[in-house]
Amino acid sequence: MQDRLADVKAQVQAALDEAMAHLPEGELTDAMRYACIGGKRLRAFLVLESARLHGIADADALPVAAAVEALHAYSLVHDDLPAMDDDDLRRGLPTVHVQWSEATAILAGDALQTLAFGLLAGAAAIAPDRRLALIQAFADSVGARGMVWGQALDIAAEEAVEPLDIVAVKRLQSAKTGALIVFSAVSGAIMSGEDTDAMTDYARAVGLAFQIQDDILDVTGNEEDTGKRIHKDSDANKATFVSLLGLDGAEDKARKLVRSAEAALDPYGEAAGNLRQLARYVVERAS
Amino acid sequence: MQDRLADVKAQVQAALDEAMAHLPEGELTDAMRYACIGGKRLRAFLVLESARLHGIADADALPVAAAVEALHAYSLVHDDLPAMDDDDLRRGLPTVHVQWSEATAILAGDALQTLAFGLLAGAAAIAPDRRLALIQAFADSVGARGMVWGQALDIAAEEAVEPLDIVAVKRLQSAKTGALIVFSAVSGAIMSGEDTDAMTDYARAVGLAFQIQDDILDVTGNEEDTGKRIHKDSDANKATFVSLLGLDGAEDKARKLVRSAEAALDPYGEAAGNLRQLARYVVERAS
Repeated sequence: MQDRLADVKAQVQAALDEAMAHLPEGELTDAMRYACIGGKRLRAFLVLESARLHGIADADALPVAAAVEALHAYSLVHDDLPAMDDDDLRRGLPTVHVQWSEATAILAGDALQTLAFGLLAGAAAIAPDRRLALIQAFADSVGARGMVWGQALDIAAEEAVEPLDIVAVKRLQSAKTGALIVFSAVSGAIMSGEDTDAMTDYARAVGLAFQIQDDILDVTGNEEDTGKRIHKDSDANKATFVSLLGLDGAEDKARKLVRSAEAALDPYGEAAGNLRQLARYVVERAS
Repeated sequence: MQDRLADVKAQVQAALDEAMAHLPEGELTDAMRYACIGGKRLRAFLVLESARLHGIADADALPVAAAVEALHAYSLVHDDLPAMDDDDLRRGLPTVHVQWSEATAILAGDALQTLAFGLLAGAAAIAPDRRLALIQAFADSVGARGMVWGQALDIAAEEAVEPLDIVAVKRLQSAKTGALIVFSAVSGAIMSGEDTDAMTDYARAVGLAFQIQDDILDVTGNEEDTGKRIHKDSDANKATFVSLLGLDGAEDKARKLVRSAEAALDPYGEAAGNLRQLARYVVERAS
């Protein structure tokens, strides 16, 4: 899996570079490129592995993989803004508003969202009706009933008097980080016109396990490995899977989710080996 | 034209209400709806008139008209943020970040951009390949080489020591407000698969005239009519068409552009009467 992940990283970075190669030079484009540096590229990995499982070649699915990473980059730039989570460190580098300005960070995020939709619309190897289905599923996943809604719930939770309960934290996670992970994982099935149920089950479990591990790393990790500020949530007395389930309970829950994610891949047999490994990696990672 | 504009307003508001009817209730959705209230709906008018001229019925083009207005609303919400133009009044109402918070304004703008692309992708009456062409043209118009680039140029100009010259101000306007106006005007031709040249010429002239009139109103208008703060640009010693050409020069230039916009519509004959009237209205309006 690590070889495949390295290969995905290289392909996606090349696709993002190409997509931004002919933009007007200036702070805006610099900030967009900067925001797209690094990252684990797990979403792109999900797209390309989902595509492969459904008979779609990397080259044909690459614009979709680049689109999810551009969208993810935009979400991080906006989430890091002072009016939002107010983070100064991301992927081991100063956040965009620290490096340039709040205005540039807002605009770079805006333009990265646009870029993501442009990449999907230009995915010429995917039949037009399926490309449109992808764009609609993407819009559903990242908008006012998906990722942005999740971020709004997160902001609201910070201002609430009572910490969230486990049901509310799961709902928040499912929107804020889960929806784009699910889109990434089902994208191959949408591209091939096949059923999305198994990949949805897989991705929901992986997405939740991913967030639980993030909460665990916020407590047990270090800034060198994670490339971002830690102890933020615990210091803010924020409801997390660790605060709600305890460290052991959270680790146990994450392990169960990994087994359930692996089981969801049964219909794909041996071919889904990389995705099974990814599910395990998600809870074993230190960054 | 005023009857048609009133009809367009009603249709577009209904389409936007419908598109936001099933979103989760909360501040985010409230702020999105609030941002979509009012406005002149000139861009939606351009879409529906362009569609009509190219044989596309209102009902078929309506999602496109709603998409450009959702996109325009997002751009206003983000432009009004404290880190950007820092405006507290828009369309006669408190701006979104004043009414709620900066975080809600950032997120509502983000989700309105997503909504715009979702509306385009769901424009079921438009053939899939043409819908994709629309989405690509839209992404080009509103992203890092279009509207967002124009806003970045505008922010940079405010921080520059020397005011912009006329060439730079035109380039800025052509990106910041011109690109979405051009998209709106050519959308009917894209939907019908016809040539976009005449509508592009028309819209470039109208877009520039619109901005010149905005600059004129910033000097000669009042807040009651315009629904926004005026004398902002002149007080900030910002280069505008009025500061560069003088009030008479700006009015003269706007009138010339209107004649050139009307001439560009010659291939459409009498059928383009509403668009000719719109060109004249753009420089006669007081708000």
